Amino acid sequence: MTAPTPSAPLFDRLVIIGPGLIGSSILRRAHENRAIARELVASDIDAGVCARVRELGIADRVEADPARAVVDADCVILCVPVGAIGAVAAQVVPAMKHGAILSEVGSTKVSVITGVLPALASRPDIAFVPSHPMAGTEYSGPDAGFPSLFENRWCLLTPPEGTPPDAVARITALWQAMGAHIRTMTAEHHDRVCAIVSHLPHLLAFTICGTADDLAGETRSEVLDFAASGFRDFTRIAASDPTMWRDIFLNNREALLEMLDRFMADAHAMAKAIREGDDTVIVNRITRGRAIRRTLIENRQA
Amino acid sequence: MTAPTPSAPLFDRLVIIGPGLIGSSILRRAHENRAIARELVASDIDAGVCARVRELGIADRVEADPARAVVDADCVILCVPVGAIGAVAAQVVPAMKHGAILSEVGSTKVSVITGVLPALASRPDIAFVPSHPMAGTEYSGPDAGFPSLFENRWCLLTPPEGTPPDAVARITALWQAMGAHIRTMTAEHHDRVCAIVSHLPHLLAFTICGTADDLAGETRSEVLDFAASGFRDFTRIAASDPTMWRDIFLNNREALLEMLDRFMADAHAMAKAIREGDDTVIVNRITRGRAIRRTLIENRQA
Ligand SMILES: NC(=O)c1ccc[n+]([C@@H]2O[C@H](COP(=O)([O-])OP(=O)(O)OC[C@H]3O[C@@H](n4cnc5c(N)ncnc54)[C@H](OP(=O)(O)O)[C@@H]3O)[C@@H](O)[C@H]2O)c1
Ligand SMILES: NC(=O)c1ccc[n+]([C@@H]2O[C@H](COP(=O)([O-])OP(=O)(O)OC[C@H]3O[C@@H](n4cnc5c(N)ncnc54)[C@H](OP(=O)(O)O)[C@@H]3O)[C@@H](O)[C@H]2O)c1
Repeated sequence: MTAPTPSAPLFDRLVIIGPGLIGSSILRRAHENRAIARELVASDIDAGVCARVRELGIADRVEADPARAVVDADCVILCVPVGAIGAVAAQVVPAMKHGAILSEVGSTKVSVITGVLPALASRPDIAFVPSHPMAGTEYSGPDAGFPSLFENRWCLLTPPEGTPPDAVARITALWQAMGAHIRTMTAEHHDRVCAIVSHLPHLLAFTICGTADDLAGETRSEVLDFAASGFRDFTRIAASDPTMWRDIFLNNREALLEMLDRFMADAHAMAKAIREGDDTVIVNRITRGRAIRRTLIENRQA
Repeated sequence: MTAPTPSAPLFDRLVIIGPGLIGSSILRRAHENRAIARELVASDIDAGVCARVRELGIADRVEADPARAVVDADCVILCVPVGAIGAVAAQVVPAMKHGAILSEVGSTKVSVITGVLPALASRPDIAFVPSHPMAGTEYSGPDAGFPSLFENRWCLLTPPEGTPPDAVARITALWQAMGAHIRTMTAEHHDRVCAIVSHLPHLLAFTICGTADDLAGETRSEVLDFAASGFRDFTRIAASDPTMWRDIFLNNREALLEMLDRFMADAHAMAKAIREGDDTVIVNRITRGRAIRRTLIENRQA
């Protein structure tokens, strides 16, 4: 009875540790579509979050103790901040059943995988399939989630070498059931791609908000009153959760600092062109920005 | 018959030079609300734009020759790119009637005013009221305009010292009729405020698009496929017209380069904190970004 029959759900028991924005969105989707899991279990370090998930009725069972929550689960997904994933893995892996799948949804991969591997050293029977759903909002916590969060968004999988293909296939099926499109890549490549498309933009947005705030304080001026569209879009990015972003910056520091270096060199070149009135360089850079925008519109991501 | 009676329109003849995004939006609004001007005249350097404005029927008259267009006008608004405003002023001012008002809508002010003043030297009877409506889209040209573009947006006025208060009051009334909120400030202050809230964000957005594009080329990777929300918002900013932005960068270079310097120093400090794992600095900066976002939401600009 271990192989799922066509009508059996993808997982018998699916456990979400950390039912915040991401975790509660998975629960909501799986609660709507019972082909994903027969039983949904949630656990959170915060008693308030546990109580709220019970109230929301998006899990079949809520357990305060994560080690208790994972007993007999086919699949456990860690949806906690990047900085906590290693420690939570160490807590739950010893209690997981033979042959179960461990996954997580952290926004960075190299350091997360490094942090989880020690817990798996004595449990080679557990398949580990890291995933990163590229979806989010500026809100967090169990009330922020919604079942369509992952619809038509990318989900990147970075299974370490040697991960059983069957486990990768099941996590792929899970994210497809969430509405996501899947790509598989190495953890190193993931971290570089995310450094440029997401982490660096956030770093710049946080930084310019500070620069503007200093100026507003200094001149006691109305800087913020006039946030034109440019600045408004930056603050949308800058609205995200501080702990999550601190964790991301520190856990992807190598790739992020490399991208920042490249960016700073490019910004210096642009400054030089403006200082020297070099039309060609300026127009060329602006035109490239537009071309990329157009690519994104064609890819329906803008 | 020179003082308007309560039922007379604000201007008898209003001329728009350069009916692109901004100019055609003014025309559309004034065409809807005939209390703004009895007669609307448009002129553009581009015969195609003139023909299109005729087709659209948003001006009562279209003149290819700008000097002909401004004859007997009470008010002339230059809606051409920042780099062309001085030259167009030199073309039209000699043909303007005694005591008329000259305005323009450029995104920078110090260099625009410096460029216009020579044309006004022999015409002290002309009142000059520079304005900057802080509204726009990523599109340009006469088809891009719409009558509500300025609704609930700021319009900054930077009248040079000695501008007749009556002229400032009439331009204020014009923008209020466009639906905008008005603030008056010096040209220097305007340029610094716009450098931080709009010009620097655009420069950073153009730059990061180039950085990402280089990386995508180099690794032949799918960088652009995964534009998460962070990068997507940047490309929205980066979609604007290259000529307009080249003009803005070159015409506001002093304030812009000062803001870029400040920003670079702040980015270096953030990089240092990430390299050294300095939690406090990182969280503090992220938190400031969020606080600014909240201010903007309270001000209903986000
Ligand atoms: N938000 C995004 O845009 C996004 C996108 C893709 C991936 N991710 C990743 O998804 C993960 C979760 O992010 P999120 O936005 O869903 O955050 P969230 O809404 O704050 O949810 C995280 C939950 O985990 C709980 N938690 C923290 N430490 C824990 C621990 N040691 N044991 C058990 N529970 C713990 C938190 O509780 P308390 O906070 O109440 O203590 C919270 O309820 C992060 O790794 C993040 O990098 C986020
Ligand atoms: N777009 C914004 O977000 C925004 C916001 C606030 C202020 N502004 C300012 O508004 C002004 C116009 O911007 P826009 O976005 O409306 O640009 P636009 O849509 O490109 O319109 C500008 C128009 O002026 C014409 N033109 C160029 N040089 C001319 C000349 N020497 N004589 C007569 N007409 C000329 C252009 O014709 P061709 O291009 O066909 O040659 C075009 O039809 C700029 O100064 C800009 O800085 C723009």
